[in-house]
Amino acid sequence: MKFQAPKGTRDFFPREMAWRNHLIDAWRRVSIRNGFEQVDGPIFESLDLYKVKSGEGIVNELFHFEDRGERELAIRPEFTPTLARMVAERAGALPKPIKWFCTPNLCRAERPQRGRLREFWQWNVDILGLETPVADAECIFTAVDLLSELGLRPEHVRVKISHRRTVRHILAKMGVPEEGMTGAFDLLDRRDKLTTEEFTTGATKLGLDADRVARFDQICRLKYGVGKLDQMRDQIGVDEEMADLAALDAELRAFGIAPWCEYDLGIVRGLAYYTGTVFEVHETSGALRALAGGGRYDQLIEIFGGPSTPAVGFGMGDVVLSNVLMDKGLMPEDVSPRPDVYVFAATEGGAAGLSATVADLRRAGLHTRFSYKASRSVGKLIKEASASRARFAVILDDHSAHGRVSLKNLDSGEQHVVSVEELLKLVAAK
Amino acid sequence: MKFQAPKGTRDFFPREMAWRNHLIDAWRRVSIRNGFEQVDGPIFESLDLYKVKSGEGIVNELFHFEDRGERELAIRPEFTPTLARMVAERAGALPKPIKWFCTPNLCRAERPQRGRLREFWQWNVDILGLETPVADAECIFTAVDLLSELGLRPEHVRVKISHRRTVRHILAKMGVPEEGMTGAFDLLDRRDKLTTEEFTTGATKLGLDADRVARFDQICRLKYGVGKLDQMRDQIGVDEEMADLAALDAELRAFGIAPWCEYDLGIVRGLAYYTGTVFEVHETSGALRALAGGGRYDQLIEIFGGPSTPAVGFGMGDVVLSNVLMDKGLMPEDVSPRPDVYVFAATEGGAAGLSATVADLRRAGLHTRFSYKASRSVGKLIKEASASRARFAVILDDHSAHGRVSLKNLDSGEQHVVSVEELLKLVAAK
Repeated sequence: MKFQAPKGTRDFFPREMAWRNHLIDAWRRVSIRNGFEQVDGPIFESLDLYKVKSGEGIVNELFHFEDRGERELAIRPEFTPTLARMVAERAGALPKPIKWFCTPNLCRAERPQRGRLREFWQWNVDILGLETPVADAECIFTAVDLLSELGLRPEHVRVKISHRRTVRHILAKMGVPEEGMTGAFDLLDRRDKLTTEEFTTGATKLGLDADRVARFDQICRLKYGVGKLDQMRDQIGVDEEMADLAALDAELRAFGIAPWCEYDLGIVRGLAYYTGTVFEVHETSGALRALAGGGRYDQLIEIFGGPSTPAVGFGMGDVVLSNVLMDKGLMPEDVSPRPDVYVFAATEGGAAGLSATVADLRRAGLHTRFSYKASRSVGKLIKEASASRARFAVILDDHSAHGRVSLKNLDSGEQHVVSVEELLKLVAAK
Repeated sequence: MKFQAPKGTRDFFPREMAWRNHLIDAWRRVSIRNGFEQVDGPIFESLDLYKVKSGEGIVNELFHFEDRGERELAIRPEFTPTLARMVAERAGALPKPIKWFCTPNLCRAERPQRGRLREFWQWNVDILGLETPVADAECIFTAVDLLSELGLRPEHVRVKISHRRTVRHILAKMGVPEEGMTGAFDLLDRRDKLTTEEFTTGATKLGLDADRVARFDQICRLKYGVGKLDQMRDQIGVDEEMADLAALDAELRAFGIAPWCEYDLGIVRGLAYYTGTVFEVHETSGALRALAGGGRYDQLIEIFGGPSTPAVGFGMGDVVLSNVLMDKGLMPEDVSPRPDVYVFAATEGGAAGLSATVADLRRAGLHTRFSYKASRSVGKLIKEASASRARFAVILDDHSAHGRVSLKNLDSGEQHVVSVEELLKLVAAK
């Protein structure tokens, strides 16, 4: 009887787990230094919770089931509905701004492919209760701080930013009627996947003439650096329509992340609930899926029964991020913790004190391994100790009953006879 | 539209999350210093994987569902089947002993009650590939090391230990036939829940006469300290039957954990797959469910298609552990991370440099918060900084454009004007 991990899921053997921890520890470390507090919710929620935000269509993408009380439940495919539920429940009692992060595993019943699995981990970072673009910039800074922490640089990744209200103003000025906005955003979003003919047909349906279709097509592709909005003004021929993007621009420059960011009016984010800033992090070659995506969603908490609450946030998955780090050679070869000491007995007399010495060292907080083979030669045991990557070998012999052990620095080769107390000090100091 | 967390699950707001992290960080820290490597598997597995170990009866206790390919899947109710599957898959390639830990969330479709929820976290610690009682003792030491790390002492909790082979020998010598062993273990396991009459009826059915029923009843209740097996020998009138327990006893003493442990022949562990040592951790009053349970399971890896592999391990859940720590006043009041600095602007000129200073401090790794309110008085802002529990306030004013800021130690009240570089050094040093 042989079993395998279910389709689209992963087993994390120690090496893969160390890589996962490398990402999740960085997510947590960067979140905390940026002033976010960690939260979490249940692995499954009412199926209805997901329909509120995404409609009935979401059900096919979920792993759902009934409990014995015939409640319809689903494994969480994203964290935002849980966050909205939690904020709605306690909105009055929570000091503002609410700055939360979490690192949940999420499941989606979709076809597994490169960058997309059925179970994955996602970093979620959200600021609620602030409507100023400081919050938008702080979220983007936090994403950049993480990318930088993992060794990525502006030449590897780019935060592509747009603003729904700005784009809406530009489209309206270009002649897109209010009722055509959803269709226009959809065209923007899918421009790269459409032929010129398909795009032209779509844009014409919105009521645009040939000139304006061409201008719309141009807008989909325009990119500008942070601090270069004057170029956009000139090229698109707009001015006060860009006020929202201009306010964000000032904050992005203040946070010092201009080199990581660019404006790309083709960034829309499929999800209908974004109301302002939207952004995605992409590998610069553009070959992979987005590493992260987010934006402002000022109306969502109300939909979940809470008070009107401005909100901005993003999610970053572990799968594409891992792929990028691997591709760039930035996933450390060995991120598993290095033992402080490796203990073994060189004589029968030493073996009698092995477990007690190991227990003392571990209780003192040292990462301690030991040889389970009593009968090997000292040379072989030293090799075993080195293979474990320990910093020190602790060798017990007939003197150990009197509290003396040999301490060998496995990096330098130095060896001393020390007491157990000296040993603790020496190892802790290095 | 208002939603709640599903029955038997928990929301983790920042305070509850900090408590959960307090446990899970300790699990991880103690595991690593005891030489275990972290692993994990998928949140759901084939439903069949759980039937292998536990039979069809398990299905009612699981949250199970079908994917679009009509595969039957279930959210994991325990980690051991995943562990067995992973070890069976790579058994040949993994260096022995295999020492793994994990901290998965698990789900069981049972009625929620004190100490038992539908979603919980469980620390799993396992050693595979060693048949000597050193491994059993090392697992028990690791459990004790964790309890001690969280502030518990032998007066709070006790590791209750038995050995299935020893008990089997004692029962056989007392006259329990081979085919009655399962029934006898079941009686042992349930003794506390049965009336004397029910117990006598059950024991008589095993073929025991009145004398032996009384002796069996006595055995269910006997408890002995580690190092006190001679008392057990005298009272039960057995000797070589106790060889397995005696070998374990020597190791428990060597690891220095005798005060935490006692032998209790009434400890059986319901699960049929244990083959040797079994143990549970209980709060000393005995009022609560077990905090942890485990033992030796030398035949399980074979059942999952792997090679014959000796194995010992345990699981410890977060729910009873949290209850015990709360009851004993050992759950720290505030375990959320303390900010290093709280930055605010005292003047308009200072406000211009706020985001840049915050960005610099965070990039340098300092946990940095800042005031989103520009227009408050310095006194109010200092109060805001103190309320955040930050160690230092960083105050920006008109001189900050020239790189000078005021640094106020919020614990001591001391205040200096420093450069941003000095600031980084000072805060990092404290």
